[in-house]
Amino acid sequence: MDSLRQIDLIIDSLLEKTTNITMIKRIAILVAMEEECAAINKALDLVQLPKDSVLAKALFPIIVHSNKKETVFSIWNGVSSAWQSAKHEDDHKEAKDLKIKLQRVGTQAAAISCWECIKRLDPDVIVNSGTCGGITSVHKHADKTQVLPQVKQVYFGDKVYYHDRRIPLPPWNKGWDVGAYQCLATPKLIQYINAKASQGVQLAHITTGNAFDHTLQELEAWKKYKTVLKEMECAAIAEVCAEFKKPLIAIKGVTDIVDKEDTAPDPLVNQAEINAQFITNLLHTCQNTANVTKLTVDFVLNKQISDL
Amino acid sequence: MDSLRQIDLIIDSLLEKTTNITMIKRIAILVAMEEECAAINKALDLVQLPKDSVLAKALFPIIVHSNKKETVFSIWNGVSSAWQSAKHEDDHKEAKDLKIKLQRVGTQAAAISCWECIKRLDPDVIVNSGTCGGITSVHKHADKTQVLPQVKQVYFGDKVYYHDRRIPLPPWNKGWDVGAYQCLATPKLIQYINAKASQGVQLAHITTGNAFDHTLQELEAWKKYKTVLKEMECAAIAEVCAEFKKPLIAIKGVTDIVDKEDTAPDPLVNQAEINAQFITNLLHTCQNTANVTKLTVDFVLNKQISDL
Repeated sequence: MDSLRQIDLIIDSLLEKTTNITMIKRIAILVAMEEECAAINKALDLVQLPKDSVLAKALFPIIVHSNKKETVFSIWNGVSSAWQSAKHEDDHKEAKDLKIKLQRVGTQAAAISCWECIKRLDPDVIVNSGTCGGITSVHKHADKTQVLPQVKQVYFGDKVYYHDRRIPLPPWNKGWDVGAYQCLATPKLIQYINAKASQGVQLAHITTGNAFDHTLQELEAWKKYKTVLKEMECAAIAEVCAEFKKPLIAIKGVTDIVDKEDTAPDPLVNQAEINAQFITNLLHTCQNTANVTKLTVDFVLNKQISDL
Repeated sequence: MDSLRQIDLIIDSLLEKTTNITMIKRIAILVAMEEECAAINKALDLVQLPKDSVLAKALFPIIVHSNKKETVFSIWNGVSSAWQSAKHEDDHKEAKDLKIKLQRVGTQAAAISCWECIKRLDPDVIVNSGTCGGITSVHKHADKTQVLPQVKQVYFGDKVYYHDRRIPLPPWNKGWDVGAYQCLATPKLIQYINAKASQGVQLAHITTGNAFDHTLQELEAWKKYKTVLKEMECAAIAEVCAEFKKPLIAIKGVTDIVDKEDTAPDPLVNQAEINAQFITNLLHTCQNTANVTKLTVDFVLNKQISDL
């Protein structure tokens, strides 16, 4: 736990600096998937920047949307060029049936988007909004204070970890490898949302990696760091935010529980059905997450960090 | 193997376009660690850009060096701000004993550096030069055509895979998840180096992930994709290069064999000795890799892609 104590000290010094920002005038919302972005754009009335604008050209294939006043932006990682380059319609049949493109998901694309967002837009606050899996089984013996996620519910990130970065060599092993980045503590924002939304929101730890499934080592990491929201971008975004001392709010809606104890595949359920179910849950959860994101932006804009 | 066939088709179309470049006038060398970068800068006479130059400020904390004619650049990911922020000298004692800083290693920092390099410098060829681990044991039953790496030897990358990106949902599972990016085929360059250098170089498959150790799933991936050079950046660089159709040359020197069959730690060797041995091997291998990188730049500059 020594490494976590050290990271806490670093986080303290970062938060000290971030709380000096006078007023939140510009918010950038980072999203990995088009479906997540579409729901947010609709809720917040954001429109894609013209393709020949300086910012759109500089960031392509990342896609940027904004409101009319240019105070709120959404930034979606975009589609891999490998999608456009595929020569045979058949190669994409299965994907097209699910109406899903080859989107640039994962930590590499997320790190680039956050970096570009900070370098080119310099927002006062970054929001990472999207869907995730819930982790429950590995925490069944945890104390009762631990939040256990429920499908279709939305959560705010507290600490954010990498569950697949392991570097047992100093100085990386002093906590940099697992991340343990801190999101903004937002008690007043949470109070506001809980008064406005039909479903309440809670704080929970997020864990990030580049795979849908998980290894035994990763299960152990989830248990150790008490992470309950599993996704593929947030730690990379939090790492870049920490680098530039930008405050981060993470909003995550749960599509499914990923560590069900019965991990043997059900022979009666085929992969096509599993995939279709993923899309259905995704779209429903995107809607809930976009609603909380809109309430967040409404509350945060034109406030001080200390008012959140 | 269907996904690999498809990726081959995509690679063919990318290489078609990259071979249209008329003349290689500008080369950018991407490196993860200061030690790797220092050896390259010395071999190629590259000097750090002034800190107040437009490019240096735009890329900070990434550090850029160039030669006088600005035809060759080295780009090092730099040091994490967490290193500067740590409040106690004691927190870094172990790392300082090894003379190693908290450098931004791994795929997230590498993806950002490659993206910035392409967007701001627009080089004709990108070189990823650095050290790696060798994989031998999992290939002991492989056919005799498989290259088995040796410590302190230098190799050119052939194909590059992510061993920790697993997304079993179309369209990502059609090969995007594992990567399988293609480096430039450079038979004449290899011939040139083999004539000039005391040690020969060969083509080999690279595998990339964000951990020093490996899981059972990752061992299986190494076997499946016949990867023998294990490191933490190349696939992320190759992915960004593929996105922008930039040709990539990967040069990797082997510091140690990472999948020794006897994986139980030797009780007589303590962690401090293992760490010190890592640094010694690193510095020696950096030198060999820098030598091959210099020969590569000498040969590639002012040639056509088809002449490599």
